[in-house]
Amino acid sequence: MRGGGGAATARLAVAARAFSSAGGGVAMVQGASRGIGLEFVRQLLRRRDQGRVVATCRAPGSAAELQKLKEEHAPGRLTVLPLDVTDETTIEAAASSIQETHGSLDLLINSTGILSIPNVIQPETTLSKVQKSSLLLAYEVNAVGPILVIKHMWPLLKVGGRSETGRGFSLVANISARVSSIGDNGLGGWHSYRASKTALNQLTKTVSVEFGRKDNIACILLHPGTVDTDLSRPFQRNVPKDKLFTREFSVQKLLSIIDSVKKSDNGKFFAWDGQEIPW
Amino acid sequence: MRGGGGAATARLAVAARAFSSAGGGVAMVQGASRGIGLEFVRQLLRRRDQGRVVATCRAPGSAAELQKLKEEHAPGRLTVLPLDVTDETTIEAAASSIQETHGSLDLLINSTGILSIPNVIQPETTLSKVQKSSLLLAYEVNAVGPILVIKHMWPLLKVGGRSETGRGFSLVANISARVSSIGDNGLGGWHSYRASKTALNQLTKTVSVEFGRKDNIACILLHPGTVDTDLSRPFQRNVPKDKLFTREFSVQKLLSIIDSVKKSDNGKFFAWDGQEIPW
Ligand SMILES: NC(=O)c1ccc[n+]([C@@H]2O[C@H](COP(=O)([O-])OP(=O)(O)OC[C@H]3O[C@@H](n4cnc5c(N)ncnc54)[C@H](OP(=O)(O)O)[C@@H]3O)[C@@H](O)[C@H]2O)c1
Ligand SMILES: NC(=O)c1ccc[n+]([C@@H]2O[C@H](COP(=O)([O-])OP(=O)(O)OC[C@H]3O[C@@H](n4cnc5c(N)ncnc54)[C@H](OP(=O)(O)O)[C@@H]3O)[C@@H](O)[C@H]2O)c1
Repeated sequence: MRGGGGAATARLAVAARAFSSAGGGVAMVQGASRGIGLEFVRQLLRRRDQGRVVATCRAPGSAAELQKLKEEHAPGRLTVLPLDVTDETTIEAAASSIQETHGSLDLLINSTGILSIPNVIQPETTLSKVQKSSLLLAYEVNAVGPILVIKHMWPLLKVGGRSETGRGFSLVANISARVSSIGDNGLGGWHSYRASKTALNQLTKTVSVEFGRKDNIACILLHPGTVDTDLSRPFQRNVPKDKLFTREFSVQKLLSIIDSVKKSDNGKFFAWDGQEIPW
Repeated sequence: MRGGGGAATARLAVAARAFSSAGGGVAMVQGASRGIGLEFVRQLLRRRDQGRVVATCRAPGSAAELQKLKEEHAPGRLTVLPLDVTDETTIEAAASSIQETHGSLDLLINSTGILSIPNVIQPETTLSKVQKSSLLLAYEVNAVGPILVIKHMWPLLKVGGRSETGRGFSLVANISARVSSIGDNGLGGWHSYRASKTALNQLTKTVSVEFGRKDNIACILLHPGTVDTDLSRPFQRNVPKDKLFTREFSVQKLLSIIDSVKKSDNGKFFAWDGQEIPW
């Protein structure tokens, strides 16, 4: 009986630890109005009953899905803040606001990314279509943006990652893309997007080196697979059905990586299935 | 005697071929006012007696060394043209001018690069010093610039690389840097420069895929070593004497790679000693 009771208690304790490891802390999802970012918010709120989520987007007022999620959950569980990665003052303001409300961050997911915007930027099919304006815009949003967010959230990440979460360190997860891999680039094209994401990989690695030396923070890069979102929609025609993931599936996979990542994974680049992607 | 004569003739023919392979054609060196670019011009003029060189720089009027080289060589061997990689109209104008004067290009070396400019950009020692303006400027000059140059020289490269040079294809050599390697990044820092050069690697690889499919052109990336130039001067303190190369030595090594490169090396990244550098 005792033994049995002890085993049951032990099982309960393990379950409680697992729960608290998935439960506590403050997670920020940057680029949360739509697509993968929004799905991260949804799943984090569902999975981590005690956790608080800060969702940022360019226009909280018109982010109907986020506002709905806010209403569906207990007060204080979801905070929605304005943040445009191309406007550093909004990043600083978000950091100040999180500092006041939460005082720390345990998880930062940078999901913002652009591939095509009608009449502004299109993935290039040939060098002759490469435009300076597209190269610079993709770089500003996809590479510079996430790095400035990390820069300003750094003080909050430094004091996060403690007892509240099971992980024991703070984590930054930047959403990259397999096409950022230079070694894996056999197709060519998509110059602006590719180069911006490759630079994001290098910047993330560079930051991970400094964090690894000084702080209790790890950084990883994630490839979500080809996911059914506004971003991929114009390019889904040639994607086999079983290679086009739902947002639910992709984010489930990415969260399982985020949950199981070790400090020694600092600076690594994982696909949705946990496989490392070559640089 | 005959046999002897035949062997001598054969030897002469081989020597002549080697000479003409090093001798003919039109080479463009972009970023030629100083440093490694200027040394490329000097050695190309010295080594390739029949070859013509187009040297571009931002301010030909004040590029005293280039003007001196022009005077020292036969008329027509060296053309100096204005080109600022941040101003696409100057790239287009240079392409038109080369089209008129030479009609083709066999070799394009992009040497332009910035690491530090007093009061403008400094290699970052920590994330907290990373500035958006530095990230964007380094990207514009080090990554976007060379790619726009290739874009506009493409028609000239397409018709180059034929009988005139021994190579049999046109070659683009972009000067990158070992610190662009993500896999090799154990030190961190230098965010803006690193990320811009990593993006240059990805853009070069992307272009190489298209060229490999359509054209008789190969692209390679080169790391010159740590070379005694204005660019490295502020950072030479911790470089061991034998690891700091003269411009003469580095360019000799890089030209020997350029001379021996095969079409199958398209898209590769070589250090001065011919070793491939991981992405
Ligand atoms: N979907 C895929 O197949 C796929 C594959 C590989 C990688 N990825 C990467 O996954 C990430 C998420 O993409 P997704 O598919 O979810 O794309 P998405 O549905 O198009 O969502 C993009 C998100 O980025 C935000 N955003 C754009 N510009 C911004 C800015 N200046 N400041 C702040 N936020 C901005 C958008 O906000 P607004 O609503 O304000 O426009 C939106 O929330 C991206 O980094 C993408 O590159 C996606
Ligand atoms: N030196 C090293 O140890 C080292 C190591 C690794 C890689 N590299 C790379 O080697 C290449 C050559 O560097 P270096 O050491 O010779 O540097 P450098 O002596 O400082 O020369 C840089 C050259 O770039 C030109 N340049 C700068 N901005 C330009 C623009 N907007 N448009 C056109 N040209 C511009 C400069 O022209 P102005 O005279 O008009 O300023 C100058 O000719 C660079 O790509 C560098 O990143 C150097």
